[in-house]
Amino acid sequence: MIKINSFGIIGGDKRQLMMAKSIVADGYKVYMTGFETIDTTVGTWIDTTLENTVNNSDVLILPLPITKDNKTLNSTYADRPIYLNSDFAGLISGKRVYCGMKSQLLKLCPELDPKLIYDYMLREEFAVQNAVPTSEGAIEIAMREYSGTINGSRCLVIGYGRIGRVLAAMLKGIGAYVTVASRKKQDMAWSHLAGYNAVRSDKLHETGGFDIVFNTVPYVLLDAHTLAKTCDGAIVIDLASQPGGVDKEAAKRLGIRCTHALSLPGRVAPKAAGEIIKNTVYNMLEEEYE
Amino acid sequence: MIKINSFGIIGGDKRQLMMAKSIVADGYKVYMTGFETIDTTVGTWIDTTLENTVNNSDVLILPLPITKDNKTLNSTYADRPIYLNSDFAGLISGKRVYCGMKSQLLKLCPELDPKLIYDYMLREEFAVQNAVPTSEGAIEIAMREYSGTINGSRCLVIGYGRIGRVLAAMLKGIGAYVTVASRKKQDMAWSHLAGYNAVRSDKLHETGGFDIVFNTVPYVLLDAHTLAKTCDGAIVIDLASQPGGVDKEAAKRLGIRCTHALSLPGRVAPKAAGEIIKNTVYNMLEEEYE
Amino acid sequence: MIKINSFGIIGGDKRQLMMAKSIVADGYKVYMTGFETIDTTVGTWIDTTLENTVNNSDVLILPLPITKDNKTLNSTYADRPIYLNSDFAGLISGKRVYCGMKSQLLKLCPELDPKLIYDYMLREEFAVQNAVPTSEGAIEIAMREYSGTINGSRCLVIGYGRIGRVLAAMLKGIGAYVTVASRKKQDMAWSHLAGYNAVRSDKLHETGGFDIVFNTVPYVLLDAHTLAKTCDGAIVIDLASQPGGVDKEAAKRLGIRCTHALSLPGRVAPKAAGEIIKNTVYNMLEEEYE
Amino acid sequence: MIKINSFGIIGGDKRQLMMAKSIVADGYKVYMTGFETIDTTVGTWIDTTLENTVNNSDVLILPLPITKDNKTLNSTYADRPIYLNSDFAGLISGKRVYCGMKSQLLKLCPELDPKLIYDYMLREEFAVQNAVPTSEGAIEIAMREYSGTINGSRCLVIGYGRIGRVLAAMLKGIGAYVTVASRKKQDMAWSHLAGYNAVRSDKLHETGGFDIVFNTVPYVLLDAHTLAKTCDGAIVIDLASQPGGVDKEAAKRLGIRCTHALSLPGRVAPKAAGEIIKNTVYNMLEEEYE
Repeated sequence: MIKINSFGIIGGDKRQLMMAKSIVADGYKVYMTGFETIDTTVGTWIDTTLENTVNNSDVLILPLPITKDNKTLNSTYADRPIYLNSDFAGLISGKRVYCGMKSQLLKLCPELDPKLIYDYMLREEFAVQNAVPTSEGAIEIAMREYSGTINGSRCLVIGYGRIGRVLAAMLKGIGAYVTVASRKKQDMAWSHLAGYNAVRSDKLHETGGFDIVFNTVPYVLLDAHTLAKTCDGAIVIDLASQPGGVDKEAAKRLGIRCTHALSLPGRVAPKAAGEIIKNTVYNMLEEEYE
Repeated sequence: MIKINSFGIIGGDKRQLMMAKSIVADGYKVYMTGFETIDTTVGTWIDTTLENTVNNSDVLILPLPITKDNKTLNSTYADRPIYLNSDFAGLISGKRVYCGMKSQLLKLCPELDPKLIYDYMLREEFAVQNAVPTSEGAIEIAMREYSGTINGSRCLVIGYGRIGRVLAAMLKGIGAYVTVASRKKQDMAWSHLAGYNAVRSDKLHETGGFDIVFNTVPYVLLDAHTLAKTCDGAIVIDLASQPGGVDKEAAKRLGIRCTHALSLPGRVAPKAAGEIIKNTVYNMLEEEYE
Repeated sequence: MIKINSFGIIGGDKRQLMMAKSIVADGYKVYMTGFETIDTTVGTWIDTTLENTVNNSDVLILPLPITKDNKTLNSTYADRPIYLNSDFAGLISGKRVYCGMKSQLLKLCPELDPKLIYDYMLREEFAVQNAVPTSEGAIEIAMREYSGTINGSRCLVIGYGRIGRVLAAMLKGIGAYVTVASRKKQDMAWSHLAGYNAVRSDKLHETGGFDIVFNTVPYVLLDAHTLAKTCDGAIVIDLASQPGGVDKEAAKRLGIRCTHALSLPGRVAPKAAGEIIKNTVYNMLEEEYE
Repeated sequence: MIKINSFGIIGGDKRQLMMAKSIVADGYKVYMTGFETIDTTVGTWIDTTLENTVNNSDVLILPLPITKDNKTLNSTYADRPIYLNSDFAGLISGKRVYCGMKSQLLKLCPELDPKLIYDYMLREEFAVQNAVPTSEGAIEIAMREYSGTINGSRCLVIGYGRIGRVLAAMLKGIGAYVTVASRKKQDMAWSHLAGYNAVRSDKLHETGGFDIVFNTVPYVLLDAHTLAKTCDGAIVIDLASQPGGVDKEAAKRLGIRCTHALSLPGRVAPKAAGEIIKNTVYNMLEEEYE
């Protein structure tokens, strides 16, 4: 990482602001574009034009998701759209670019050299770290929605991937009785020895008596039958990406309260989410230069 | 507890509703007064007049605090005031009464026999159990206010009494780096061996670098000097009862964000708070009849 | 698993005795061979000849390791050797056999049908579960060897695979300050968010000040240079299989106390180790019949 | 503590050796008497006569227990007895003395000024800290005696005082299912919210199914009836001081394996035990001079 002196941040939301602050604190120069409508602290980074940002930066960081409309760069605080087209491609061409959803960027700007585009979103450690703000966001929702305390409550966590692991550990850390549903035998072994009640996800409908059910699995395990058996009297918090893992109509019919919580990291902990992007980009740069 | 068949609940808020539900689920008859303005579920308990409630119940439960205006019973959902006067005393006289703040009740109704008035609020296990919803409420506030994640954050908990203990354990359970400030040597020994960084509360101003500071001590340890040193860059959440443990003017002057969180159990977890009252009353009845 | 009524256990050590007891408690018939020299409880399982055991059992379980001398079955308590040869192959041929180190068995008995030989040792959940007795064995050694307490001690765990994860969690659970060294970025992310100090295993020589160092990595990370820097004043417990991960000569020269702990599950917790084999065989049978 | 430059350590065992090493590392001069029979490291402390030690030291530290025979100082490594008599009293008179069991010392040396004798054993933080090596010693015994793993085992901890609290937390930290028996309602509330199964110690005989039972209560709760019900199939580890909390004859009759573990800190973790004495003496000195 010796050769990097400056970063250019183009577009994004609060996470990018927090990331900028954190990169500045590490001693780098930071140029920013797409944050014209908000008042940013003077002297920490340099708010400037797209051209200036690109020309002065050794490395560019683009947001996640890179676009919401498949046309312009995702930039909540920009005063005008930044189009992802051949002009944009021409401008940033030759620069090392770190973004989320590289394939999307290359589809809109096919002129870019794929070898210079790096996708931080595909990195394992990015996903691992994001499990933390996601889990805390889920717990915050649970605290708000549930009229009892998490301590002493009976929680079901469906899925024992990254989010399932972090979430289950935090719930236990607060004092909940945690059941984990998973499919693979080794995940059941892991969740059992971590002190959870381990159940098979294909036997979910044989369980019940939960106060709060968290789903992390991105397909509909919580169908009408399972909802009726497993989630009776429970609050359901669905953390799976669209379309989620809950048969919403059935939940409505059964009178089961269900919250679909999406994009938690950016919403509940922009500072943490920004630092996770930074850390991942740093890791990628480090590996590049080692 | 063999002889108790019915409970009378007079006044209160959501906690008393939850408590009623929970007592009914235990198989007892419950009579209620002071919940006229809300629609209560049919068939679970009996909404009736003050006279009926008193006459039909083996035991009466009054709310906490018993009064907010030093004249009438604290009853959020009543359609008319219930005066704590000699009429009230005459009506309930001879009944076993469980309330919070017994001395307050006896001041307003000196005719009552003190031997029949039991104060659940003075019970040690009541305070211990209430530390749970208080701590969760504090964490919920921290999650909402802090833009990072609790996991990985540096938290200071001032005081190692009931709330300090539960709160520190939960913060660690989520993955925070926890420092505990206490006065007594044995509390420092306890907090150290629980894995926290243990500091002396009279040396607080020598510490710093925290993201979130929780105060549980009911006198002003966080004066201007300590705020400036210890809380620079931190969010302060004050859990101490009125007037709290923070020099609020100094905090304002120093630009330190401070939240004074009061009566958390009833607000964030009425179900838990109601069950805690119930459990404590049950314990007291059990001891009476053993 | 409906069709299985009886298990045959041939050879092994205390683990197989414990496993037999546990299978009997589950309601199955158990035939055993190779335990002639010890007094086994009457009435729980049937001690009999090799032929009887094979003929009466639906399923056979062989020990781990299957052989220690590459000729005879590993059977600590047998009164005469059981040769792994074509006679043995002929006898058990056609039976479903569960063993550790299937390839070894097939080399000695090439007549056997590989499709009927199942290796429980290759199962992920077997390895996961065995991490528990291995970790406890390591902690027991540490408690015995270290003159301080684990609580408050500074422990280094090298490697964040199955054993590293379980061991680090247990050490933290007792109150140690845990540092985890790993190679992969995602493992560093995981160990960091679990609350450990995360270091890169290729920068081990830059760390130090530990009381106890546990190695789980099966190649020599602890060479002379790293030992001198990282392990100065520490006790080293090597959990890696032969030849281990410590330059033993260098350790001797440097005066660093090093324990190479092998086969811990069978030695420290034969009951647990036996039940782990049982659970894994059950899982495999279940999958077969589903 | 500004005025203290030198410590004199008279008698004791390994703990005192470890303590001496630790005090030297803090920069003080240490004079020692009563360690003639062992080879102590040259240059760290000064092995000398009783007279020299007393004359050169600002403060004296005597061992715990101070005597085992009610005549001589407890000194495992002395080459001749040090009598606790008027000669000894005359020699140390006027010096500030820190010891365990002050009353014992004053009985044997009534000439001493009680105001100059300080008992570190009576300090709350001394007892709190000693709960750590005691608990680890108990776990080490359990690991050695129990053929399963602590993780996943069902443990009963009787008593929720200092040792009960630390031990239960460590057992849970390793992954055991922990039940805590206590007498007071608030202790039951505490143990319940810490995540244990909380039972009343006067209803112990109604519980059962444990793998390991730890007793910390110094009177016989484990009588014949309770042993038969609660401890059937379990290993019993008694941590209560003499005569312990187990009806040993009944245990023998019932075939229940029972280990009475005494003086664990000094035996399993002399370094920790020595540092605990040191820390407590430091605390006492600090308070003296504040």
